[in-house]
Amino acid sequence: MPVHQTTLTVRTRGQGTLEITDEISRVLKASGLAQGVATVFCQHTSCSLVLMENADPSARRDLEAWLQRLVPEDDPQSTHTLEGADDMPSHIKMALTRTSETIPFADGKLLLGTWQGIFLWEHRRAPHTRSIVLTFLG
Amino acid sequence: MPVHQTTLTVRTRGQGTLEITDEISRVLKASGLAQGVATVFCQHTSCSLVLMENADPSARRDLEAWLQRLVPEDDPQSTHTLEGADDMPSHIKMALTRTSETIPFADGKLLLGTWQGIFLWEHRRAPHTRSIVLTFLG
Amino acid sequence: MPVHQTTLTVRTRGQGTLEITDEISRVLKASGLAQGVATVFCQHTSCSLVLMENADPSARRDLEAWLQRLVPEDDPQSTHTLEGADDMPSHIKMALTRTSETIPFADGKLLLGTWQGIFLWEHRRAPHTRSIVLTFLG
Repeated sequence: MPVHQTTLTVRTRGQGTLEITDEISRVLKASGLAQGVATVFCQHTSCSLVLMENADPSARRDLEAWLQRLVPEDDPQSTHTLEGADDMPSHIKMALTRTSETIPFADGKLLLGTWQGIFLWEHRRAPHTRSIVLTFLG
Repeated sequence: MPVHQTTLTVRTRGQGTLEITDEISRVLKASGLAQGVATVFCQHTSCSLVLMENADPSARRDLEAWLQRLVPEDDPQSTHTLEGADDMPSHIKMALTRTSETIPFADGKLLLGTWQGIFLWEHRRAPHTRSIVLTFLG
Repeated sequence: MPVHQTTLTVRTRGQGTLEITDEISRVLKASGLAQGVATVFCQHTSCSLVLMENADPSARRDLEAWLQRLVPEDDPQSTHTLEGADDMPSHIKMALTRTSETIPFADGKLLLGTWQGIFLWEHRRAPHTRSIVLTFLG
């Protein structure tokens, strides 16, 4: 069966959501596959994936701020703090969002809703180089 | 490879979980596929998917009430409020649950656990027409 | 198309995360498939899946303790308590984490990040026998 697999390297700028929809669409187009599913996999435990509104940036800012309040960095009950105050919260935020997403495509295009974008959510304060494995099955 | 793709249109009745297991099973049966995976994709950012107990409705009511308390509608820190007080909470609740699920099937039947049902979780107060893309790979 | 499907039976020891990466890797190897995706599906609504750091156990302990504080067992607003105080919290914790994960593989090996392990997260206090359906598409 047609399997097209590639790794996307994404440079983050510290905490926050970063849209990767266009990069995934480009790889899909290059694969030549028409219909099937795109599986997106985040190879890390301190960043994650989320499908979110990509029209009004205030929605993403509110989402990021809300999660920051739910999982504060100064939690005295954390013991896993070797890499800093943002270490343990980054794992918790990852676990509450997603590591893998499966997105359908047809006619060589991702079947996203009108307002949906695919985002890599960096949970560490420092910029990181992140690897996202894309596998298209069609 | 055999790919069977279709869009399910679901009319919600406002906030709450709505079971869509039977609809998905029917499309699977019609596809004629025997073994593989069903991918379920929600094309929206203000509703989501969840696999939940479908026996005792009190479990779903408690789950819905708990999430409502975690993400209240009167949060003074929300700025993305153009569409009303339930706008931003609906995105947050979506991000904490699921946009895509991948469910195995064999002998033309979904391999769900005894108590598992597939639910569309509407997070907006008003009824909406929602699109769920089903892709069966087998 | 090559579909390899099997059910993994896992005996849990009560609440906590239990690594199942090696079991999944073994089934993948036995399938003889080289490249594609592994879909992991939890057939229960009171336990779940999570991809988490598998190096320092303190990260998992902190994650488990944090979720325990977010979803306490003595919530007076729970009504679904027939099976005990850990009944309803187990469903909530499941809904906040994952029921299905899709993990790419190449050269017969799961493409996990350096620190990633696949965990079954038992949310009930008592040990349980759990079923995880693995479907490899390649």
